[in-house]
Amino acid sequence: MSDTKPSIPKGTRDFTPLEMSGRNFIFQTVRTVFEKYGYMPIETPAMENLTTLMGKYGDEGDKLLFKILNSGDYLSKIDEKGLNKTNSLGLSSQICDRGLRYDLTVPFARFVVQHRNEINFPFKRYQIQPVWRADRPQKGRYREFYQCDVDVIGSNSLLNEADLLCIIKEVFEKLGIKIVIKLNNRKILAGIAEMLSGGSGNQMLDFTVSLDKLDKIGREKVLEELKAKDYDQKALDTLSPLLDFIGNKDETIKFLKEFLKDSETGLKGLAELEEIIRLSKLNKLEELIELDLTLARGLNYYTGAIIEVKALDVQIGSVCGGGRYDDLTGIFGMPDVSGVGISFGADRINDVMNQLHLFPVAASTMLKLLFVNFGAKEAEYILPLLAQVRNANISAEIYPDASKMKKQMNYANSNNVPFVAIVGENEIKNNVISLKNMQSGEQKDVSIKELIDLLKI
Amino acid sequence: MSDTKPSIPKGTRDFTPLEMSGRNFIFQTVRTVFEKYGYMPIETPAMENLTTLMGKYGDEGDKLLFKILNSGDYLSKIDEKGLNKTNSLGLSSQICDRGLRYDLTVPFARFVVQHRNEINFPFKRYQIQPVWRADRPQKGRYREFYQCDVDVIGSNSLLNEADLLCIIKEVFEKLGIKIVIKLNNRKILAGIAEMLSGGSGNQMLDFTVSLDKLDKIGREKVLEELKAKDYDQKALDTLSPLLDFIGNKDETIKFLKEFLKDSETGLKGLAELEEIIRLSKLNKLEELIELDLTLARGLNYYTGAIIEVKALDVQIGSVCGGGRYDDLTGIFGMPDVSGVGISFGADRINDVMNQLHLFPVAASTMLKLLFVNFGAKEAEYILPLLAQVRNANISAEIYPDASKMKKQMNYANSNNVPFVAIVGENEIKNNVISLKNMQSGEQKDVSIKELIDLLKI
Repeated sequence: MSDTKPSIPKGTRDFTPLEMSGRNFIFQTVRTVFEKYGYMPIETPAMENLTTLMGKYGDEGDKLLFKILNSGDYLSKIDEKGLNKTNSLGLSSQICDRGLRYDLTVPFARFVVQHRNEINFPFKRYQIQPVWRADRPQKGRYREFYQCDVDVIGSNSLLNEADLLCIIKEVFEKLGIKIVIKLNNRKILAGIAEMLSGGSGNQMLDFTVSLDKLDKIGREKVLEELKAKDYDQKALDTLSPLLDFIGNKDETIKFLKEFLKDSETGLKGLAELEEIIRLSKLNKLEELIELDLTLARGLNYYTGAIIEVKALDVQIGSVCGGGRYDDLTGIFGMPDVSGVGISFGADRINDVMNQLHLFPVAASTMLKLLFVNFGAKEAEYILPLLAQVRNANISAEIYPDASKMKKQMNYANSNNVPFVAIVGENEIKNNVISLKNMQSGEQKDVSIKELIDLLKI
Repeated sequence: MSDTKPSIPKGTRDFTPLEMSGRNFIFQTVRTVFEKYGYMPIETPAMENLTTLMGKYGDEGDKLLFKILNSGDYLSKIDEKGLNKTNSLGLSSQICDRGLRYDLTVPFARFVVQHRNEINFPFKRYQIQPVWRADRPQKGRYREFYQCDVDVIGSNSLLNEADLLCIIKEVFEKLGIKIVIKLNNRKILAGIAEMLSGGSGNQMLDFTVSLDKLDKIGREKVLEELKAKDYDQKALDTLSPLLDFIGNKDETIKFLKEFLKDSETGLKGLAELEEIIRLSKLNKLEELIELDLTLARGLNYYTGAIIEVKALDVQIGSVCGGGRYDDLTGIFGMPDVSGVGISFGADRINDVMNQLHLFPVAASTMLKLLFVNFGAKEAEYILPLLAQVRNANISAEIYPDASKMKKQMNYANSNNVPFVAIVGENEIKNNVISLKNMQSGEQKDVSIKELIDLLKI
């Protein structure tokens, strides 16, 4: 066989045991909280039919889908006219029927519609799986990454939004990450757009795309962009006080009540926002919430609340986000089912935890006890002892080879094994185990029962 | 947006919460045992470079790889001569650089070579991830399925084989599946082949492929196949007593000692087998082991022990299998590193557990308490109570909408929620919670503290 220098595709990663322990700590935390709030796990296949995925993420998104080549003699059935070097896009739709999922939201919508007759609505599900995007790889952006989504579908109640905010608070508390939760409402954005365009509201998307950039490009550039998008001076004059406005939650709400007084949609969004804040007070997390009228999160399918979580103490994008979508399943022929959900970005959270040194030490040690191997005779004596230790649910092993003591101790050190058991000729004669605490260096003779009692803690 | 009837690709599956609870029970069991034995988790990307995957699974395997179409203008750089309807195979190698992993063994070998400088050998890893094969889907065979692999690499010691057999025993005991562990050794097969071909042993593969079928096609057909493969009458006469042999472990070993007396390799394999059995006696699992001289498991890379686990009480293929490979990483330019490992088939195990009704009931209920929702006022009263229940780590929720009582109780029943809390006007007045046990039907008024104490068990 050939001598291949091994590597992995650009933008993908291997995870070593140490990295896994951190990731598993995040997944386990998220999973435990989701289940405590009554959300249940589902999984969907990595591959979806391209008909399910295409057209759901905009033209840009379509380009970022990983497509899977059809099996077998895939060229035999295609239209030969399309077989030329300039037809990459056209050919791919003929030779690929499937693609890797791009997010967990569209597969979830597909799942709900496909299994509608087995599901008890409201359906509260969570899903922790990787997604794939053919994005240009860069620091902190990968082509394979995990999303942790939690959604409820089939209920209009704002208690759901309130519950999701509790989940956010509890997850990040458990992880030790300080956060601010930014809130907005798509109907408020629609109301503002309505005010500007004199009631038509059809430039909603253009408008939110520009507004979303306020933080990055500043007030003047936003106005320039809108001018270029055919907003007239009157519209920009209407917008000005909003861009200039600074105030706390109560003041912002008061301001919006006036600003949106002629937009039915806008006022409805404002009422939703107020109710969510009221419920957050009852749930004792109001102090984490900030209103952010520029928050749009790009995604077109949001129709109500928009939620985004930023980690404090660290420069990084959002670590969690989501919102309400009134018609997600409509694209698959099941209209008028309202849902709301959020997605935790496991990889970003991992980066934050690493930067702030938040991973508990315990997460990185797994093996608790190593028996040193002096040879066949000693190993034979040790095997039943090892079985007893493991029966007490203590993670333990015997070094498989009778290597030099130094090599075995190095192995224990490199793997952060906290205890080493030494059972040589003398120990066997005296029916004891010499137990070494690798951190303190302390070493003492114990019985197997004492050893188990010591390590069980 | 268009009205797409949703479905998933052939051979793939969605997993509902109920199915997930069974799967998670299996994964959790396997993971717990692996870690107790000192194995640590790693993960590798779903996509590997095709150069890593191709040629590792034989020609048939290459055809079963899912290939990923290169992104962007993938046709622009190809050789135009290859662009014709009859060149599916040739073109795919030009327009696809990556593929989905086919198993966890080759990615593991690639991982070890790529990370050789960060790894402390012997390296004990486990890996639980899906793999993909473009096989013809059929009952019990999927195009996406999970493997649970556990391997140690960098140690020749047979203590590793003995440890893996302990893992097999403990995993299936914990799952409640009765098993038999079939053992063989590749060197014994090589020795037998050597005896037949008069010492050259180069027809090893042909020979094991035929022998592997003994159970299915019978003695006569095996001899016919070998004759067709140019084995002469003398060779077949030599083989006859082996095919006819029936005996227990000790008798088989005695028979082989004689049969293989002129094959150094064969005797070495036999010695390994005897040592593994001796260690299994010490580990109190010898009664689970059966010798099976026809066991080859197809895979070419095994060089020592071959292991296969069959579930009793149910007609199904093997639920676990593996063996020792002395040169797995050689294909990636790192020779002479010996490893041994086994793979648990989570989907087969799942089928066995379902057929034998082995899943614990607890695995299918997650939400413990549902608060009925009578409206905004009651919900507001309930939110702090709900927070208290959740703070005690009890999974609980409030039904999000003030729907009819019957609908809410149906929801509790369909989701197997064991307790429902009813807090209406009267209960609020009396400062109690009416707690209903959904199984017994019993209903009584309790304080929040009593409720928590009751449900905490």
